[in-house]
Amino acid sequence: MSEYNFLKACWGQPVDCVPVWLMRQAGRYLPQYRAVRAQGAGTFLDLCKDVDRAVEVSLQPVDILGVDAAIMFSDILTPVEPMGLKLDFMPGPVFANPVRSAADVDALTVPENMAAAVPYVPQILAGLRRQLDGRVPVIGFGGAPFTLACYMVEGKGSKDFAELKKMMYGDPQLYHALMEKVTAMSANYLNMQIDAGAQTIQVFDTWGGLVSPHDFEKYILPYSSKLIAKLKGKGVPIIYFVKGSGTMLELVKQADSDVIGLDWHISLGKARDILGDDVAVQGNLDPSVLYAPQAVIEAEIARILRENADRPGFIFNLGHGITPQVDPQNAIFMVETVHRLGSK
Amino acid sequence: MSEYNFLKACWGQPVDCVPVWLMRQAGRYLPQYRAVRAQGAGTFLDLCKDVDRAVEVSLQPVDILGVDAAIMFSDILTPVEPMGLKLDFMPGPVFANPVRSAADVDALTVPENMAAAVPYVPQILAGLRRQLDGRVPVIGFGGAPFTLACYMVEGKGSKDFAELKKMMYGDPQLYHALMEKVTAMSANYLNMQIDAGAQTIQVFDTWGGLVSPHDFEKYILPYSSKLIAKLKGKGVPIIYFVKGSGTMLELVKQADSDVIGLDWHISLGKARDILGDDVAVQGNLDPSVLYAPQAVIEAEIARILRENADRPGFIFNLGHGITPQVDPQNAIFMVETVHRLGSK
Repeated sequence: MSEYNFLKACWGQPVDCVPVWLMRQAGRYLPQYRAVRAQGAGTFLDLCKDVDRAVEVSLQPVDILGVDAAIMFSDILTPVEPMGLKLDFMPGPVFANPVRSAADVDALTVPENMAAAVPYVPQILAGLRRQLDGRVPVIGFGGAPFTLACYMVEGKGSKDFAELKKMMYGDPQLYHALMEKVTAMSANYLNMQIDAGAQTIQVFDTWGGLVSPHDFEKYILPYSSKLIAKLKGKGVPIIYFVKGSGTMLELVKQADSDVIGLDWHISLGKARDILGDDVAVQGNLDPSVLYAPQAVIEAEIARILRENADRPGFIFNLGHGITPQVDPQNAIFMVETVHRLGSK
Repeated sequence: MSEYNFLKACWGQPVDCVPVWLMRQAGRYLPQYRAVRAQGAGTFLDLCKDVDRAVEVSLQPVDILGVDAAIMFSDILTPVEPMGLKLDFMPGPVFANPVRSAADVDALTVPENMAAAVPYVPQILAGLRRQLDGRVPVIGFGGAPFTLACYMVEGKGSKDFAELKKMMYGDPQLYHALMEKVTAMSANYLNMQIDAGAQTIQVFDTWGGLVSPHDFEKYILPYSSKLIAKLKGKGVPIIYFVKGSGTMLELVKQADSDVIGLDWHISLGKARDILGDDVAVQGNLDPSVLYAPQAVIEAEIARILRENADRPGFIFNLGHGITPQVDPQNAIFMVETVHRLGSK
């Protein structure tokens, strides 16, 4: 049995205090992050590849906020570069050569040795483990196959990822060929992270909630399920977070992750009732509540803890990433309040 | 009893064919719309205020697509101008003087006579009724108070409407004062539309799903309920559409509209089971499906009709507005297919 409340909660075991971390906790809302980001003239991608600085910003929220886990600083799209797509951030992600044709899919590489393909990632994980020296566990992460494919086909962010949809509906064979390659790469990538020291893996399906439940089941779930199956059995819990999935949690559960991430659009109590007691959950404070006075933040945290009603298998988090405009004092207050109200 | 399938469905009465229209059906995907838009050097707002051209583009989808209802061409923000906020589109909506302080809220006007404040709106409705001459009913519309307040406080579109949230959480008294004024204006505005000939009113709460169900109940629902109560009893059905509300339909139902609009993130069958038989529903095809080959479009329409299972009180629509990149032939095919598969 782990000594960490965070890992215990992932496995559905009892804890003496509700663990908490924040998605995008190493980010622009922290002046200390902005200071590191400003060192060197490099881009956001350069920071992802600069091992020392990436380790430094990953550690900041542990020191500043007192969160129960560190998450490796990176971007979900970095492992797509060695597949053969040139990645830039300006400031959103852009692939100059998006995947549109059978020839484009054929040309994609699936590196067997992801540690060699993105050497900075295992180095960051190893550096984090070393510097944390057991203080808190380290979370690795990657994009779910559908979310990665959205960017790879569209070439950039989009409201509705029309190019991806055209491929998915219009040439399902090509779509499936692409998804098989992305799933294989992701499995190699995330297993490499486990080998490099990640003690939990979060799979981000940021765009998985863009489609109807029917299309999620048909086009997305099979690949997320396959990926998660390839990561399990190594003693490392897997968190699957599908933004916008409150209306189809029964389907998300079929992906068989150990923990399900929840956004704030569903009440936590209802979500737990739907999901049952055999899976842990993570969530689900509206990130906008961090714009509120601390009395409101405390009331919202108390409400969520009340909805959880002491059920084991609960990790407190935001329902999506913390935004750059948040006052860091409110993030500190959030972590302190979860620990205060969530203690046995 | 109305002779129109559309109005019968709004009232939950049996129909001989499922009625269908498309949100944003008078829009950029139609070359005929773009041609009218290009006449005159004016802006989008100028088109909203040009009665003849606004009537013309409102009629286009009736002629071209064969939809069961015409919706007045306008924008939800036009009635906010006479409250004292200068509106521009560049190309998204911008208020140069957003509402941030008590003085700003105090300064807002609530015109009693909205027909005088936005004379082009009743003129468009009257022109539409005249030119349609009974072919199909006319839908009027407005923004729900929360969605209007989002723009009024933020001053423009936003991912999370941080300024609105800061007011809502940080100065609830000011927020409530603002919402009371917006609700009063909206009631005047939409009752004026009914008097001018609107045969149905749709209330758009595009951003109502941004917050948690708990905050929807606390900050949004009271004003939507108040607005809808002020519109009922005139023999005109009220449709309430809250984008992103599939996880809180029980709350949306409390607003007591005659019809509930559904986006595509919840399966129609599940939504109808949650909502019960005493309210009609409208939806819920993913607009992205119109990027698909017609065989896929037909299969998705068939699935939705199957989920509805011949329950009365069903209007077919997209789950959100049609996008500019859609091939008009697919919109025509959609309407034709609903009529073909949805006929008794």
